[in-house]
Amino acid sequence: MNVHGKHYRTIWLKPGNDRVVEIIDQRALPHRLVIERIATVAQMAAAISEMHLRGAGLIGAAAGYGMYLAAIEAARSRTFDKRLVESAANLRATRPTAVNLAWAVDRQLAAVARGSTAKEKVAIARETAVSIAEEDAAACRSIGEHGVPLIRAISRKKTGAPVNILTHCNAGWLAFVDHGSATAPIYAAHDAGIAVHVWVDETRPRSQGAKLTAWELGQHGVRHTVIADNTGGHLMQHGMVDLCITGTDRTTRTGDVANKIGTYLKALAARDNRVPFYVALPSSSFDWKMRDGLREIPIEERGSEEVKFADGLLVGPNGKPTKRHAEVLVAPPDSPAANYGFDVTPARLVTGLITERGRCRATEKAITALFPEHASACARR
Amino acid sequence: MNVHGKHYRTIWLKPGNDRVVEIIDQRALPHRLVIERIATVAQMAAAISEMHLRGAGLIGAAAGYGMYLAAIEAARSRTFDKRLVESAANLRATRPTAVNLAWAVDRQLAAVARGSTAKEKVAIARETAVSIAEEDAAACRSIGEHGVPLIRAISRKKTGAPVNILTHCNAGWLAFVDHGSATAPIYAAHDAGIAVHVWVDETRPRSQGAKLTAWELGQHGVRHTVIADNTGGHLMQHGMVDLCITGTDRTTRTGDVANKIGTYLKALAARDNRVPFYVALPSSSFDWKMRDGLREIPIEERGSEEVKFADGLLVGPNGKPTKRHAEVLVAPPDSPAANYGFDVTPARLVTGLITERGRCRATEKAITALFPEHASACARR
Repeated sequence: MNVHGKHYRTIWLKPGNDRVVEIIDQRALPHRLVIERIATVAQMAAAISEMHLRGAGLIGAAAGYGMYLAAIEAARSRTFDKRLVESAANLRATRPTAVNLAWAVDRQLAAVARGSTAKEKVAIARETAVSIAEEDAAACRSIGEHGVPLIRAISRKKTGAPVNILTHCNAGWLAFVDHGSATAPIYAAHDAGIAVHVWVDETRPRSQGAKLTAWELGQHGVRHTVIADNTGGHLMQHGMVDLCITGTDRTTRTGDVANKIGTYLKALAARDNRVPFYVALPSSSFDWKMRDGLREIPIEERGSEEVKFADGLLVGPNGKPTKRHAEVLVAPPDSPAANYGFDVTPARLVTGLITERGRCRATEKAITALFPEHASACARR
Repeated sequence: MNVHGKHYRTIWLKPGNDRVVEIIDQRALPHRLVIERIATVAQMAAAISEMHLRGAGLIGAAAGYGMYLAAIEAARSRTFDKRLVESAANLRATRPTAVNLAWAVDRQLAAVARGSTAKEKVAIARETAVSIAEEDAAACRSIGEHGVPLIRAISRKKTGAPVNILTHCNAGWLAFVDHGSATAPIYAAHDAGIAVHVWVDETRPRSQGAKLTAWELGQHGVRHTVIADNTGGHLMQHGMVDLCITGTDRTTRTGDVANKIGTYLKALAARDNRVPFYVALPSSSFDWKMRDGLREIPIEERGSEEVKFADGLLVGPNGKPTKRHAEVLVAPPDSPAANYGFDVTPARLVTGLITERGRCRATEKAITALFPEHASACARR
């Protein structure tokens, strides 16, 4: 999507030197746009593990490009396959819970195995990396197309008044290669001339809403307002939200949705106020083996410092932000804090799913009707 | 309650010089305990308006002491009554929406009018100020006594394992003269030897939970854990919350509860997971004229900078907090933010109220049975 009026993706081959990958270093957002050059698989592994980039789709694409860089390095050694497998293990270890990471690494290993010479293998790895990224972007674009009719219908009911959409965390283009999942219908509607306005949950403790979603919406020219995570219920009680759309980190075949902590609270408020609550996802985010999200999906616990501290641009003596990045301790130093990264929204609270193949209800029957190749998986569990 | 092992209230007459009032300057919490001396009504008005102190009960007590200082000053002038009325108006204007403020000022004016000499009037004002503070502390202590049986019953069911209580914002002793409202049953249970553990919502955007509630619980030795406001639903889904207790800024005669933004979301999660949700309040927080909280209670909108910025102790180059207080900009500078201060939790989501006269259900019938002197008010609306 657009940044300073220019089209960007989150990851791409450097123009003029396709043995180098470039990414947006998201740690500097929203205050600076930093492009990072990545020339080795070790640099890519560090970029993933230190969260220069994050988000399901983008981690998969980064792993794909990482394996391409690994193939280039392997081709320089005498033991191509051994080197490639080592690099694959290193990449896989960066974010052990990211489903798309292992998937992209495995896809590259299988593809590269089909080449005979090192040169051929590098060419296959390049092609596969580009394919993974293109497929991610295409899936997100399709999610956008399938989501637009929901927004258009509300817009017509409101005779063109802005459609107010609430989202949580960042399921934007910064979490994928382009378009995003939750944001894809929003960008598509905006680009089609439908008036939209987005309520952006700041999404404590890491503030991905305030830092990333607000930034990308603002750069693309989409009207939005940042709110504390406490606010959504009040807005829904007063008719100020027409539609909720969030992303997901993992959704069961029965429609239970694991997403950033706090999603469940917004889904409860949506149901209490009869606001439609949709979850947008590429099919790679389904966990076809799981039926009970609350019992089966493991919830990551992160460090307490994310809760007790906050960071951003330091405010100077004149009350205005300087260019210096700083961190502050908000809570008492001795108070413990807990930091659960995700929660599970039961399928009963989800109005529908928006996938690259279309929309469906959050039930096993409707989901497997859209993805019949998974209809029989786990059928006897 | 206790601070560094010593008993404190939030406001008191200076020992050895009862023409000076002392308060805890809450702006420095949780990182420094600052006692502020207040010797003039102008200083008290500034302390209220600039939020050196806050909270329903404490604002009332501060207004009471402010009127005592006003009486001392009026006694030095030739026009006692004129001066006192001027001071009353100034105090009243500091926080126009605070119900207890106007109530305390009016009570002082009525009391002082009963004196004949200036000296007598000053003595009455002193006595009334002390009474207002003592009554506030006594009401909160009673709330504690009426709330303890709830906690004790859960403790017995859990055969003494810690009772997990979730609270939102600061309805602690820092918001009153002592004990607090939501915290009163918690302190009373803790002091009675019942094992309790409190989940403290950080309460963005002003972080009163992380800054004030965590601090006062920690100082009194009550086990607690700070959490992002997004977390309560997940905890309740997993049986990690036995009881919710919050305070209220205003509760209708029908039991609709206005409280810090986000309270409604926690009440929804409590109902969805069958966790009891109680609201603790002195009867001064009832609005006996209102029947429909959602329609009638005005919701204050505050500045967007509270959402976009965060503040605390600046972290130094070694990664440890320094002693310097600093503020950081989290969100993009150009993104708008909205800041609704309160929301309304409908009575249907409230398990019960805990008042200084006892507990009752959140219905007009039950509330007016406990406060029969208000049974007929507004009966024909």
